[in-house]
Amino acid sequence: MAANKKAQELEEKLARTERQMLVLQKVSRLMAQKLTLPEALQAILDVVGEATGGDSCLIYLIDSDELVLCGSSPAHPEQIGRIRLRMGEGLTGWVAKERRMVSIPREAYRDLRFHAFTDLPEDTFEAFLSVPIIVRGEVVGVINVQHRQPHPHSGSEMEMLRTVGEQVGAVIVLARMGHETEYTTSHVEFLLSMPPAGAPTGSS
Amino acid sequence: MAANKKAQELEEKLARTERQMLVLQKVSRLMAQKLTLPEALQAILDVVGEATGGDSCLIYLIDSDELVLCGSSPAHPEQIGRIRLRMGEGLTGWVAKERRMVSIPREAYRDLRFHAFTDLPEDTFEAFLSVPIIVRGEVVGVINVQHRQPHPHSGSEMEMLRTVGEQVGAVIVLARMGHETEYTTSHVEFLLSMPPAGAPTGSS
Repeated sequence: MAANKKAQELEEKLARTERQMLVLQKVSRLMAQKLTLPEALQAILDVVGEATGGDSCLIYLIDSDELVLCGSSPAHPEQIGRIRLRMGEGLTGWVAKERRMVSIPREAYRDLRFHAFTDLPEDTFEAFLSVPIIVRGEVVGVINVQHRQPHPHSGSEMEMLRTVGEQVGAVIVLARMGHETEYTTSHVEFLLSMPPAGAPTGSS
Repeated sequence: MAANKKAQELEEKLARTERQMLVLQKVSRLMAQKLTLPEALQAILDVVGEATGGDSCLIYLIDSDELVLCGSSPAHPEQIGRIRLRMGEGLTGWVAKERRMVSIPREAYRDLRFHAFTDLPEDTFEAFLSVPIIVRGEVVGVINVQHRQPHPHSGSEMEMLRTVGEQVGAVIVLARMGHETEYTTSHVEFLLSMPPAGAPTGSS
């Protein structure tokens, strides 16, 4: 009996881990595709929404010193580009400023850092999980996953979203390529013009 | 007994899956860091080498119509930038041209697509696993993992390297940023200047 119970627990854990890996694989697949920035944001919202089972997923990107709502699922088209938070303002602004994840399993609306000012229904949701989007050491935005009802965030769920936050920055940057980026040299020429990574490798 | 055996199998599978997820997390972490291109390539070699337990990992990048050896573990500094293959030449060239993975568990040196012309000890290795590096729908290079002895590649091992191939393209592109890329607008301004991803969203 004990062995059966153990097997069942392992099966559940394996299924969870496989689901999380599938999320990372899906986001990686986005990097290999040729997407516009709106397509990339929508694809990220779809993957994160499906992966977390959250009732809402919001993506804010930084525009000079403000966080601007750039994507949401469910869609709030009239609010895209309109909802703007200062760095440090609200939980979202705190995550961007502190470069740290926030996990609040219930009564997120009571958090002292939180103010319900966005005119979004999400402002009344119970559970809040938020990670910074980071590229090359810079915060470029924030992803929020919210549940209407209280929802404990497991360690692996948080770790998965943290990794997604790191991948998503790359997806956004890649989606801008081809619009403004033209390389003047191939990756190879560029590489060979640079000093190597480690210690100097003299020809011995 | 049967239940114990099942639990043991599940435990092993879980450990394998967790190791693979850790690899994807590590490569994602590279995207969030500020690395030069040589640093990025070295970090990728380290992660892939550790993850696969291969005796060799080689990274080729495309320079116009040639594949150029740009990174290797163990290091072959004198060959970096020197070993050049045409698209379609050898297994590596085949992977780049066909945009497909190749897995050869033994006697890779006997493969008709393979010619031992690179002056690398790897030319005599038994097992060969190779995936294209893809960014925005374009092949930009190839990663090869080789084992000296015969080595069957499991489905999950192949899937993991395929995902790494997709991530690595992003790591390379990000490593070039800051050298040649300067945005004239923020991601937000750029996004809001574009048509949305799906159907037009009129203000209803």
